[in-house]
Order: sequence, then C-alpha cells, then structure tokens
Amino acid sequence: MAVYTEVPDAELSAFLAAYEIGTLLSYKGIAEGVENTNFFLHTTSGNFILTLYEKRVNEGDLPFFLNLMDHLARRGLACPQPVRNRDGQALGRLCGRPAVIVTFLEGVSVKAPGVDHCAALGRALAELHAAGSDFGMSRANSLSVGAWGPLFAQAEGQADGVSSGLSERTRADLALLEASWPAGLPGGVIHADLFTDNVFFIGDALSGLIDFYFACTDAFAYDLAICLNAWCFEDAGRIFRRDMAAALIAGYEAVRPLEPAEVAALPVLARGAALRFMLTRLVDWLNVPPGALVQPKDPREYDRRLAFHRQARDARDYGRA
Amino acid sequence: MAVYTEVPDAELSAFLAAYEIGTLLSYKGIAEGVENTNFFLHTTSGNFILTLYEKRVNEGDLPFFLNLMDHLARRGLACPQPVRNRDGQALGRLCGRPAVIVTFLEGVSVKAPGVDHCAALGRALAELHAAGSDFGMSRANSLSVGAWGPLFAQAEGQADGVSSGLSERTRADLALLEASWPAGLPGGVIHADLFTDNVFFIGDALSGLIDFYFACTDAFAYDLAICLNAWCFEDAGRIFRRDMAAALIAGYEAVRPLEPAEVAALPVLARGAALRFMLTRLVDWLNVPPGALVQPKDPREYDRRLAFHRQARDARDYGRA
Repeated sequence: MAVYTEVPDAELSAFLAAYEIGTLLSYKGIAEGVENTNFFLHTTSGNFILTLYEKRVNEGDLPFFLNLMDHLARRGLACPQPVRNRDGQALGRLCGRPAVIVTFLEGVSVKAPGVDHCAALGRALAELHAAGSDFGMSRANSLSVGAWGPLFAQAEGQADGVSSGLSERTRADLALLEASWPAGLPGGVIHADLFTDNVFFIGDALSGLIDFYFACTDAFAYDLAICLNAWCFEDAGRIFRRDMAAALIAGYEAVRPLEPAEVAALPVLARGAALRFMLTRLVDWLNVPPGALVQPKDPREYDRRLAFHRQARDARDYGRA
Repeated sequence: MAVYTEVPDAELSAFLAAYEIGTLLSYKGIAEGVENTNFFLHTTSGNFILTLYEKRVNEGDLPFFLNLMDHLARRGLACPQPVRNRDGQALGRLCGRPAVIVTFLEGVSVKAPGVDHCAALGRALAELHAAGSDFGMSRANSLSVGAWGPLFAQAEGQADGVSSGLSERTRADLALLEASWPAGLPGGVIHADLFTDNVFFIGDALSGLIDFYFACTDAFAYDLAICLNAWCFEDAGRIFRRDMAAALIAGYEAVRPLEPAEVAALPVLARGAALRFMLTRLVDWLNVPPGALVQPKDPREYDRRLAFHRQARDARDYGRA
C-alpha cells in the first residue's frame, strides 16, 4: 500500500487540462494498489481515480485492460470506466509513466465476507463472464499452469525455509496439475484476481468490481476456483467454509449454470488456483526488496488451502450439490 | 505516508454507528499524515476524514487540538471540524487507538508555491491568530528554544556525518539563540507547522488549513517565521525568495500589523524556526527505524536556510519594508 510516484503540481495540472472533467477540488494519494500509484480526485464533475502504472505492469497489456473495462462498463457491469481525454485517448502519460483516469466506484470491500457476500459475488462473477463474452480482444493467462514450473524453480531451494516440506509438496502438486490440467472448458474473459479487496459492497449489496490488471482469457470455472480460494477460507487458510462455497457456486449458477465438465474439473481448478497464488506469494516473499513499502503476503496461507484441496474428492466437497 | 493501522470491517461499522453521519458509501486509506493513519470516508451525509492517532501523538494533548479545531471552525476559519458522536464526544477509540472524525476540506496543497500563494497564506495565518485569540485552553510549545539543546544532544556526535561542520555551526546557533530568544512578544494560539502540505487551495484561492497537531501557545511572529522558512525558499533551501517573503508578510499585515518588537525580532525568530526543523529532522534522520514506511526529511535543507539567516541583518532582508 503506497504512493510510489510524487506528482508535481504543474505536471498534474497539465495532465488534467487534457480532460473534460471540470476543476480539481481535491486529490489524495490512496493507500491501495500494490502495483500502481493511485490518487482519488474530486472535481466539479465528480469523483475519479487517477492511476499511474508502475514498472510491474506491462505497458503493452494496458490497451487490453482499459478496453475491457470500457467494454464491461458499457455492458452495464459496475466497474471503473476509463475516461477519454479531449483527443479520445484513455491512456496518457504523467511523470514518465502510463496514466489513466477512471470513474470512481462507490463501495467498501469486506475483509471478512459471509455467506450472502459470497452469493452476491457468484452472481457478479457470472455477469462479468457474460458481459465479456463479446469483447473482441484476448490476452493469454501468463500465470496459468505453464508458468508455475518456472515460478517454482525460482523459489524451490528456499521453500523449505518458509515451511517445512513445502518443496516436496509443491513438486508433487505441480506434477499432478501439469498432468491433469483441463483443456477445452468454456472460457472467455476472466478477472483472475477477484479477491475481497477488488469487490465493493454498499451495505449488503454488491456495488462493483475493480482492478482488472490480471484479467485474461481463460476457463470461466478457473475464475470461480480463484474466488473459492480467495473468499471461502477463514483463519489464514485453516478453515474451509463449505457453506460459503456453496453460496458462491449457487450464486454463479443462478446466472450461468456450470457444464458437467466444469463441475468435474472444480477440484483440480481449485487446487491449481491455490498453487498459483502460493507460488507468486512465495517468490515475492523470498524477494522483498530492501526498503519495500509493501508487506509481502504470506504464502503459507495458500499452502494450507492446498492441504484442503488435496483431500477433496469432487465438487460436492466444495458445496456443489 | 502510510496507513499504520488496518481497521477490521466490524470495528469500523461499530465505530461509525455511534455517529450521525449517514450510511458509509466508500472509504480509502490515504497516503498522508506522517504521524497518523487517515481514511477518507464518503457517506450519504458527505465527506469526512477518520484519523487514528498513532503512538507519536500524546493522547493528553488531543483535547487541546480537537477543541481548537472546533473553536476555529466556529469562528469561521476553514479548517477540519471534529464531528461529535451521539454522546456528544469528538474523541473516540478504534482499534485500541484514539480516533476522531473530522469534516473534509476541499483543496489541493501546492508543492511549489508562488508569490500569490504566499500572500494568501499570510492573510490566512493572521486570521488564524485572530480566530484563536479567545480560545480558552493553552499548550506550551514543547519544541521551542528550551527543547533545542536536548534535541541537539541526541544528535551532536553524528551531526558531522550528515554535513561537514554541522555540529560546530549548530552549537554556535544554539548559544546565540538561547542568549537572544525574545520574550514578551504578542502571542496566543499558533499553528507551528504550516508547511505547504497543510494549506489547501482551489485554483488560486486558499481554501483552508489542516493538521493542527503541533498547535500551541507561542509568539505569533514565530508562526510567521516558520512560514518564511517553509514557503519562501526554493531548491532545497539554497535560494531565498525575498519577493515571496515580502508577499507573505504583507498578506499577514493586511489583517494584523506587526508591532515594532515583532519586526525587530523577525531575523532571530526565522533563524530559530530553521534550527527547530533542522534539529527534529536531524534526530529523525539518524533514527530511522528498520522497515520504516516513511522516508525521513533531509535536515540539510534547513542547514542551508540557516546559512541565509546567519547573514540577515534585519527584517528588510526578509522583504519587510
């Protein structure tokens, strides 16, 4: 959580002058966004978020992300919509970085979701998949099964220092998942990072989805499996909440019923999703730069989820009747 | 710039339920406030700032700060006003910390002020002094001349490692200032930390003052001297902008003319103010805790200002005709 780039007054003024968003009344650096610098802008036209993309974001991917948000917003999904400047461009440059202004989305992320939050999330996820179905661009999932081996190779030698036996457990998971990863499931645009921070609620009603910077083209059910991991475990991965998983899946299926192949694949997808986040967290954990402003997330929380997934037999263990 | 305290949903909800500020629509941790954790709150009633006081703030001083903001706001000064809860209390507790909600002030701080900003600041400073004149509480300035010797004692042995000769220069300044520090100047409530971050503008108009957590009872002209240091130097303390200083003082005197004793004391007050910030920065610079989220400010910027103040002869050198 940090502001990585200080923006001088004159550069901000010059940047904003290219947009028809009224007079700036206030702006605040906000302590969100692990990858980027975000400012809350209040102008005479309303509220906006200004994002400066820091070096972890691949600039070549930005047109996909920005066009996707624009597409989804036009399809009625509640998500930030990029604001175009007077030249019709959504993507600008500020302080030497790619920068974009998006509409502000009201709502609060819940840190400890309940069953009703999961049900609402399931519906919103299916609506996202439907709204993205006629989006014309595609982007391969650079963090899918093919990336996990190389990620593990970066961390393998130090994994047991993080958790005893982690290296051996991961090797076995990786071999199994590489051998059994499903192909040919229904797919399209997925969010791929729909953690609780990226879902807003007002009271109990879901008010929108944010942070599409991992969005890609992959199996829809894999997105659901990511949410099962992100939303349906408590106590740092120790407790699986089958009731919350059941609500998540039922909410999803109220909008888009799963096909039999997707139901059958759920356990392996959930296990793969847990491995993906364990691995990226593990690499980050072992590579904290000196003076880092961001506290790395604990990979062991996903090692614990993997323990659950290893013993799951079928989708019924995830609350799918 | 950091959020020091993570606030769980349930604790935030319980805290907000004690206030009549409507339904929470969104909140964001904001990357401001070196000493405290601040959240921007948007509710159906408007915008607010929620502050959690971290350990550097003396809890016993909070009634002074909060009552002062309330007093100044009631006198028409544009500053954050503490919001009282249903029990009539402005000061609450959240996550084990003293916490307060204040009204949100629109405006943007300027990083590179100009002559007009300085003129507006001068007027606002004099208005602050006038608005505080009938405030019933007092608080000694714990960072005035008597505190500088003990501060320097903490840093003296390492000062020359920060800047060659700094130790000897500081000893000489300290001796001179302790011998000549003026007493009996007109005084009352001063802000004592009116740096550019704490002054908001909308367009060219000053829209308000924030951050009263160094406010205390001291000489009015010392507050002006702090602003001379904070606003009227460029290039990290290398260049004194006499035109900006003249505008600051003239703006102040348009509301409250300085008495002859204050005019005569300006050089020594300006030198003292520079020494005060050099010393606190020096101590912080030499004591950065491991894993600190905040980058310490460079004490050498104030060592350079001191070089200017040492050669100033009288108030004319500060642009006071």
